[in-house]
Amino acid sequence: NDLTCPIIVFDEECFQGRRHEFTSECCNVMEFGFETVRSMKVESGAWVGYEHASYQGQQFILERGEYPQCDAFGGSNAYHIERMTSFRPISCAVSPINSRSQNHRECRMTIFERENFLGRKGELSDDYPSLQAMGWCNNEVGSLRIQAGAFVCYQYPGYRGYQYIMECDRHCGEYKHFREFGSHCQTPQIQSIRRIQQ
Amino acid sequence: NDLTCPIIVFDEECFQGRRHEFTSECCNVMEFGFETVRSMKVESGAWVGYEHASYQGQQFILERGEYPQCDAFGGSNAYHIERMTSFRPISCAVSPINSRSQNHRECRMTIFERENFLGRKGELSDDYPSLQAMGWCNNEVGSLRIQAGAFVCYQYPGYRGYQYIMECDRHCGEYKHFREFGSHCQTPQIQSIRRIQQ
Repeated sequence: NDLTCPIIVFDEECFQGRRHEFTSECCNVMEFGFETVRSMKVESGAWVGYEHASYQGQQFILERGEYPQCDAFGGSNAYHIERMTSFRPISCAVSPINSRSQNHRECRMTIFERENFLGRKGELSDDYPSLQAMGWCNNEVGSLRIQAGAFVCYQYPGYRGYQYIMECDRHCGEYKHFREFGSHCQTPQIQSIRRIQQ
Repeated sequence: NDLTCPIIVFDEECFQGRRHEFTSECCNVMEFGFETVRSMKVESGAWVGYEHASYQGQQFILERGEYPQCDAFGGSNAYHIERMTSFRPISCAVSPINSRSQNHRECRMTIFERENFLGRKGELSDDYPSLQAMGWCNNEVGSLRIQAGAFVCYQYPGYRGYQYIMECDRHCGEYKHFREFGSHCQTPQIQSIRRIQQ
């Protein structure tokens, strides 16, 4: 029953071919006879998908809806992604009502100009399609701390490019250097950030 | 002086090659000796870029920041975009403070299940990375009206896929059928929508 199952993956585009339903994380979709995930339906929650097994490689934020091919969940980047091999739920994603609560305690993070939490800083509790339009000093983030909730950081404005999923309850919520943003991250370039809601 | 010029375009990646600064719309960048735009810096405002001259073809929302190659302003879609030939400012984009004003009069739109403003409807004045997570009935929008401000609509959740820029002061703010969403639009599939701020 599609309605009760958080995520359904298919090994062909447009929801064809082999299918499997998951209610929790999948460390390696190949163990279920898949070469890769080529389409999927997210029925509930917010998930993060990974290019490789064991949650390695490029990351993809997966919110409720339908993804008929790889381009639908990948980012717009030069290293065109054609596979997704592992995925897990994002436990600290907030509900939309809570994420706008009066004191914003549900989604909070701090970005720093330099690594190791040094330099100028900015407090974020909302969505920023352009950090520079919000007054951030340049097109990079050196380090960051997630105090509450979860966010996606992107290389380019308008939520494009590589995606770096940041959660308060993983990695101690602390990312001291851009190498910690994700195994696919090669520069500190981050130009848009938004909250993850479910 | 980069600081005073709203948009600077380059005919090579990474801000190399021929450059030109614009303070208003450009109907055909080829008239300035460019084959296409391959990188750009948006210093202020919110703009929409188009694949072809005269504001035709695929659309790209362009907010403040740096776009070192075409992938940075394109969407994640199967019809991989490699050119941008015209662009113009979005005059009704709101400032972030106003977009969250008490009565939300600054950014408002209504989506309809079917064409010609028929069927179930939803009132939007915020950002929706997943329409279905907000309670929308399916993965399509049949028609829509923009009452105030400007929005970007996307094929897939998480602001991915083809981009359809919708403004209250163009096209009478009314889009009766998905063919009116943009010249590149082939289906009514819309799964995420967000406000355009500057």
